[in-house]
Amino acid sequence: MQPDFEKGNGLIPAIAQDAATGKVLMLAYMDKEAWEHTLKTGEAHYHSRSRNKLWHKGESSAHVQKVHAVRLDCDRDTILLLVEQKGGAACHKGYESCFFKELTDVTKNSWTTCCNKVFDPKEVYS
Amino acid sequence: MQPDFEKGNGLIPAIAQDAATGKVLMLAYMDKEAWEHTLKTGEAHYHSRSRNKLWHKGESSAHVQKVHAVRLDCDRDTILLLVEQKGGAACHKGYESCFFKELTDVTKNSWTTCCNKVFDPKEVYS
Repeated sequence: MQPDFEKGNGLIPAIAQDAATGKVLMLAYMDKEAWEHTLKTGEAHYHSRSRNKLWHKGESSAHVQKVHAVRLDCDRDTILLLVEQKGGAACHKGYESCFFKELTDVTKNSWTTCCNKVFDPKEVYS
Repeated sequence: MQPDFEKGNGLIPAIAQDAATGKVLMLAYMDKEAWEHTLKTGEAHYHSRSRNKLWHKGESSAHVQKVHAVRLDCDRDTILLLVEQKGGAACHKGYESCFFKELTDVTKNSWTTCCNKVFDPKEVYS
C-alpha cells in the first residue's frame, strides 16, 4: 500500500499531529520524494509549494518533527503523521500550532488567538 | 478574516477532528458554498470532488458532524473543524476515523488497522 499521489497531481495533503497532546499542528503537502525522505529519515519532509522543492521541516529553525507513526486514509490521498515537534512550535509565526485562529462569532466574523506563542520568529529566523 | 479559497482554485482542505478525543477523523475539501453552509447550520458541509457538488456530511448515513469550533491556519488555506461525530464513525467504511491504516514496517511496507470499526457499511448504506 502506498499513498495515491496521482490523485493530487503528484501532491497530497499531510497533516502533522502532536503524538503526545493530539493537537493538530499543521498541514502541508507531500510528493513521492517527500514521502520517501520522511520514511527514510524518520523526520517529516514536505514539498514546499511556494519554493517548489523538497522541504525538510525545521531545516532553518531546527524545529524538526520526529515521526512516531504514519497513517493513511481510506482513499489513500491524505497522510497523517503523529510527530514529536522539536522546539514546541510548528508554526513559522512562533505558535505551537498553525491553527491559532478560532472563530468566535460568525455573524460578526470575529476571531481569537487560541494557541500559545512559543517563540519570537525574529529570534529564530535571524 | 476569511479562508483564502483562491489559493486552492476554489477548494481548500478541511480537517475534522473529534472535539472530545482529539482524534483526526477525516480530511475533505470546502469551497465558499460549503464554508457558508457549515457556518450557517453548525454542521460540517464539504464539497464532494467526485460528485462535484455540496456534500452535507452524514446526509445519507445520518452521521453528521456537529461543529464545536472552527479554526484557520496561518496561511488561511486550511480549515480545522472540532466536531462531535454523530454515530461515532466518520469513515464511510465504518471506522471511527478515515485514518485507520498505520505503517508498521517501512522496509516491508506493512500496514495494520489501528482504529475501531463502529458499524457495518452494508447496514448503514442500504
